[in-house]
Amino acid sequence: MTFDVVVEVRLRPGIADPQGSTIERALPALGFDGVSGVRVGKSIRFTVTAIDESTARAEVDDLCHRFLTNPVIEDAEVILSVVSPAS
Amino acid sequence: MTFDVVVEVRLRPGIADPQGSTIERALPALGFDGVSGVRVGKSIRFTVTAIDESTARAEVDDLCHRFLTNPVIEDAEVILSVVSPAS
Repeated sequence: MTFDVVVEVRLRPGIADPQGSTIERALPALGFDGVSGVRVGKSIRFTVTAIDESTARAEVDDLCHRFLTNPVIEDAEVILSVVSPAS
Repeated sequence: MTFDVVVEVRLRPGIADPQGSTIERALPALGFDGVSGVRVGKSIRFTVTAIDESTARAEVDDLCHRFLTNPVIEDAEVILSVVSPAS
């Protein structure tokens, strides 16, 4: 089975986000008001092939934990959707 | 009204993604097979205050176009959700 995967990597609450703060500080000068709490994360998309959904999810979770995120400062949210079912 | 906004910024199809390619090349050596088509984008979260949903959406679209993305090489997907309704 083939799955489309979206992994959203976010900084944990309380971890400073200088990139987000810079965007937020710049907005009023550009004419955008009412925007607050800007946080910048990563969004990683890929395709994974596995026997079933639980195998795919286990592989993606392991991948997130070991490679795509720094678990000390980052959280990951995984969204899996089936592209092609088992043949 | 207050809205939670998630903006996912992705490279347009066909634009080279060296960061994604590097991740993809590294995975087999780390024991992850069956992963392909890795693309890395940005995920920007913030809160916006506006009179109604259409005003908020227009402001966020303008913000994406002028500031958060490079429209030549990037696409943005906007997800808006209501946090607190009009008082």
